[in-house]
Amino acid sequence: MSLPATTRAIAVYPDHPGAVHRTEIPVPQVGPTGVLVQTIRVGVCGTDREIIHGALGTSPPGSRELVIGHEVLGRVVAVGDQVHDLLAGDLVSATVRRPDGCPACVAGQPDMCIAGDYEERGIVRQHGFMTEYWVEDRAWIVPVPKHLESTGVLIEPLTVVEKAVRQVDLIQERMAWWQPSTVVVLGAGPIGILGTLLLRARGIDVTTVARTPQPNPAASIVEQAGATYVSSREVSLDALRNQRGNIDIVLECSGASTLAFEGMHLLGANGVLVLLSLTDAGRMLEVDAGRINTGIVAGNKTVVGSVNAGHEDFAQAVDDLGRFESLWPGLLNRMFTERLAFDDDVTSIARKDARGIKTLIEFDQTR
Amino acid sequence: MSLPATTRAIAVYPDHPGAVHRTEIPVPQVGPTGVLVQTIRVGVCGTDREIIHGALGTSPPGSRELVIGHEVLGRVVAVGDQVHDLLAGDLVSATVRRPDGCPACVAGQPDMCIAGDYEERGIVRQHGFMTEYWVEDRAWIVPVPKHLESTGVLIEPLTVVEKAVRQVDLIQERMAWWQPSTVVVLGAGPIGILGTLLLRARGIDVTTVARTPQPNPAASIVEQAGATYVSSREVSLDALRNQRGNIDIVLECSGASTLAFEGMHLLGANGVLVLLSLTDAGRMLEVDAGRINTGIVAGNKTVVGSVNAGHEDFAQAVDDLGRFESLWPGLLNRMFTERLAFDDDVTSIARKDARGIKTLIEFDQTR
Repeated sequence: MSLPATTRAIAVYPDHPGAVHRTEIPVPQVGPTGVLVQTIRVGVCGTDREIIHGALGTSPPGSRELVIGHEVLGRVVAVGDQVHDLLAGDLVSATVRRPDGCPACVAGQPDMCIAGDYEERGIVRQHGFMTEYWVEDRAWIVPVPKHLESTGVLIEPLTVVEKAVRQVDLIQERMAWWQPSTVVVLGAGPIGILGTLLLRARGIDVTTVARTPQPNPAASIVEQAGATYVSSREVSLDALRNQRGNIDIVLECSGASTLAFEGMHLLGANGVLVLLSLTDAGRMLEVDAGRINTGIVAGNKTVVGSVNAGHEDFAQAVDDLGRFESLWPGLLNRMFTERLAFDDDVTSIARKDARGIKTLIEFDQTR
Repeated sequence: MSLPATTRAIAVYPDHPGAVHRTEIPVPQVGPTGVLVQTIRVGVCGTDREIIHGALGTSPPGSRELVIGHEVLGRVVAVGDQVHDLLAGDLVSATVRRPDGCPACVAGQPDMCIAGDYEERGIVRQHGFMTEYWVEDRAWIVPVPKHLESTGVLIEPLTVVEKAVRQVDLIQERMAWWQPSTVVVLGAGPIGILGTLLLRARGIDVTTVARTPQPNPAASIVEQAGATYVSSREVSLDALRNQRGNIDIVLECSGASTLAFEGMHLLGANGVLVLLSLTDAGRMLEVDAGRINTGIVAGNKTVVGSVNAGHEDFAQAVDDLGRFESLWPGLLNRMFTERLAFDDDVTSIARKDARGIKTLIEFDQTR
């Protein structure tokens, strides 16, 4: 096939937030280490909605618009001269963040960037993947095995919890004894569900807490994976704390900043609370500073924030998606509660569907 | 010398808090692995004051009173048959916490006890060291070299920051790049001063923040060690944050729970905030939950609580006290702003002297 010169895409105007529009952008040249990819599908996440509504998002230099989308599965179309480990037709995804020159980035951990001048595809100064074709350097391409064709679009959101759980593992190497057996996941959106599955796959007792009472699709998925779903409208977190004994890990993926502080209360001795939600400033909350502080001190507890993910998290997510599929066949596909074609009315992605879990934009593979 | 049958001590009645009294208690038998120690001096700390005022403290079973004191330097009087590495006259200190049967304790980390049924000398169900003679098992005895005779009473408070800094080191092994260069210590009591010295001894830029404007004895000590002393009445923490660049470590040793939350704001990307103050519940505070949460998440920050200390911290504290004395001769002795004899009116230790740093109870060595 001849390589496309332009590609259709879904973009926002960061200076005029509130809506998405269709656009057409040039397809970059494929350099010696480049990979040209045709998109199969892209997942929509909370960050995309925040970009649409103007809470974050920066256009590439010289552009008024920003193509969104950072959860992608695609197929290799062509590779540069120096790329010898990918063939046309191979499935791939890509990491999101590109390093700046800070020492953490130079040391290979752009997800731990200390300077903050990184770029992110679909978020900060680089177009995203909600486009028919895109080019990326081999360094940021994640090969995806063929058996993950239906679920591989979940690799990027899964990396968020892979990094979170890896941080817990690394931090707790400080303990002579650490056998986490009880986890609470706050939130049952895609990140909460994937966090639940990751910890269930380790055999840990997981309680997943979200507002919506049962029955609902998220509750059904986490319970099929052996977790307990609890509606916070029916059981208070204090009651949960008393029921569950020492809670070793809390993953905060609700998107509600107040739950970061509830999580500090909930966490047991020697436990780790991982905060994963980027939230807006200005949400004021009255806390019992004395109780939270002394609980953390006397319990040797840790609270850690985690954003983005590293290469090892992408590799681990590829492995774990396969494990999830073996453990719970068909379960991941139930997360895809809406599929839109590129030519459908995609303006609806600006709204969060209270009943849905993950919206996908499906790209026409015959074009 | 003949072994003493009883020993004079300073104790509280936990059921009738508010004051200390002198008492006389039996000296336990020295078993095969026991060590009988004559006290040289005991330090008074905030925990002792909280015990005196009834916020914590539990008597040994069968006793109405609790002998206080857990910062001790003493001299070996006699050892049991199976103790071959200590001689009469050797200087010693002792650890504070005794394990219960929980897996963390069994694994050798009673400071990480998960069950909470530990005992602590001078605090929980075991008499403390504010007594002329005491007996302890060799397992909990810390040998102290002779050159630390004047400063060794600081070993126990130094272990608190040794553990804190060790937790930072262990937690940050997760980073490919971590070179802490900027630290803020909140509080300039004994723990804040010792934390300042420990990090200054590593060559790190330290700013020590406390309320009292200069000149004051604590400010003078930390500045002589090359730290910068800042009064929070003169410089806000927000201003400090803007001046100091990325703050890698914050040690919260102020005793004020609200500063735990200020510390979360203050901390820079990839930084670690260590909380060290045990505080009373009920101190309500309005926080910007959204800002604190997203700061922790986007900056991959860690907040860790630390209480008590392990054997390795005692060994490290012995080493570091010697280093401090080499780096800053005579400086540690300036922390001892009050020395009381056992026969003095010791009821004053219930009050915090706003100008003083560390009160010592000196025991008569000629008795």
